[in-house]
Amino acid sequence: MIEKRVWVLISLMDTQQVANRLHELCSAGQYHEAMEELYADDAKHIEAMAMPGQDQILEGKPALLKMSEHWGKTNTVHEQSVGTPLVNGDQFLCQMSMDLTMGDGPMAGQRAQMSEWCLYTVADGKIKEARFFYAPC
Amino acid sequence: MIEKRVWVLISLMDTQQVANRLHELCSAGQYHEAMEELYADDAKHIEAMAMPGQDQILEGKPALLKMSEHWGKTNTVHEQSVGTPLVNGDQFLCQMSMDLTMGDGPMAGQRAQMSEWCLYTVADGKIKEARFFYAPC
Repeated sequence: MIEKRVWVLISLMDTQQVANRLHELCSAGQYHEAMEELYADDAKHIEAMAMPGQDQILEGKPALLKMSEHWGKTNTVHEQSVGTPLVNGDQFLCQMSMDLTMGDGPMAGQRAQMSEWCLYTVADGKIKEARFFYAPC
Repeated sequence: MIEKRVWVLISLMDTQQVANRLHELCSAGQYHEAMEELYADDAKHIEAMAMPGQDQILEGKPALLKMSEHWGKTNTVHEQSVGTPLVNGDQFLCQMSMDLTMGDGPMAGQRAQMSEWCLYTVADGKIKEARFFYAPC
């Protein structure tokens, strides 16, 4: 057997490119696809507080995709918008707003307008952390 | 000599309390006083980019106070506002907007409306890091 070492140049997206792609996908309502494409395997979400039926910190892409899938099935989004991402080093900040009707939890059946600021941290071309700050409506 | 050990209970501000106090001081235009009172000795500022005559990262409370003093002397603030701080764990996010006339640098003499999102990290009751994200005007 002949061994051969081959150098492969991998091109990784920088923070601005990840931010632009997330903005593009989420603006089209493709939140789940954004997670699939841009999240690192060990990505985590850090909410400002624990939600009913959900921990404050959710770790790992499989758990996040499962949560996202459940969220997409149970809630009805009437309108949504994603602000221009603001970049600083390995992080970017992005405002997300949504007009939706909740499908489960204590607010099931209720329509609400929600807005939050999402702080993403990027490493090796992937999102490794998202931290959420809730903006007053 | 008699040695005596005394337990002292130190009360440190939590993230929400630091955020509220910063909001209170900055809303009154007391940015410099906020830095004096709330910043840790090894606090640092991380700008989104290097400014003319200023590094992207500025470290240490003495250097930050010096910068703040110079800033206050050279610029004229016509109006300013500070948004409600949004807390998540050891961090909080706060929008700061300002209508000012620049006193030096490439925009000296020009009036501008600036807005930024400031992300503060708190440890042991003090601000140890501020990272700035520039919002489009």
